[in-house]
Amino acid sequence: MSTAFDSDCIFCRIVSGDLPSFKVYESDRVVAFRDIQPAAPVHVLVVPRQHIASIHELAKVDADMSHELMVSIGEIALSEQLIEDGYRVVTNTGAWGGQTVGHLHFHILGGRQLGTMG
Amino acid sequence: MSTAFDSDCIFCRIVSGDLPSFKVYESDRVVAFRDIQPAAPVHVLVVPRQHIASIHELAKVDADMSHELMVSIGEIALSEQLIEDGYRVVTNTGAWGGQTVGHLHFHILGGRQLGTMG
Repeated sequence: MSTAFDSDCIFCRIVSGDLPSFKVYESDRVVAFRDIQPAAPVHVLVVPRQHIASIHELAKVDADMSHELMVSIGEIALSEQLIEDGYRVVTNTGAWGGQTVGHLHFHILGGRQLGTMG
Repeated sequence: MSTAFDSDCIFCRIVSGDLPSFKVYESDRVVAFRDIQPAAPVHVLVVPRQHIASIHELAKVDADMSHELMVSIGEIALSEQLIEDGYRVVTNTGAWGGQTVGHLHFHILGGRQLGTMG
């Protein structure tokens, strides 16, 4: 389900500024910040401001949201200097995916050779 | 760079039907097929028909392409019965990301508990 704001959601609270974060990117609809438990030298989380649970909920949102998420990932890869060596983008859904926060987020991982995908 | 077709690209050749694949989804702009070396019980590759090198090249394409990719991932997650237990979506870019084919592709992984992201 997608609602504008969920006060029980830590990513909604980061987006709103209610919880602190190290933001690296902000646009009208997307916010990105550093993961507090980084799994790689560069580990950024890219989230829609709107509370959308997971990637399969994006179908219910207009096309510009998907594109803005993809474009923001590219811009962050550039600003984090990941383009030349390479990077990985991951989104986890549900228990078997390892999703820990129920607000859609794309992990950008880089800064070292990445291993298997899980 | 994005061109319509690259005859040296195996995913372009799969999209065109020049190389065989087990397709699970086709739309005007997106094709998905099973990975021939599956890393999980369900391992599907989702690719744009158009030869786009990587996720940061999507900014050069219109918004509908990003949305169609995201929507197709959701539809495949549903048809592959991954929604309830969960799944992971990954796109690798460049050497450190582990990208092996220079045509944008999203891995959908599911059917078991997934481990670390790399």
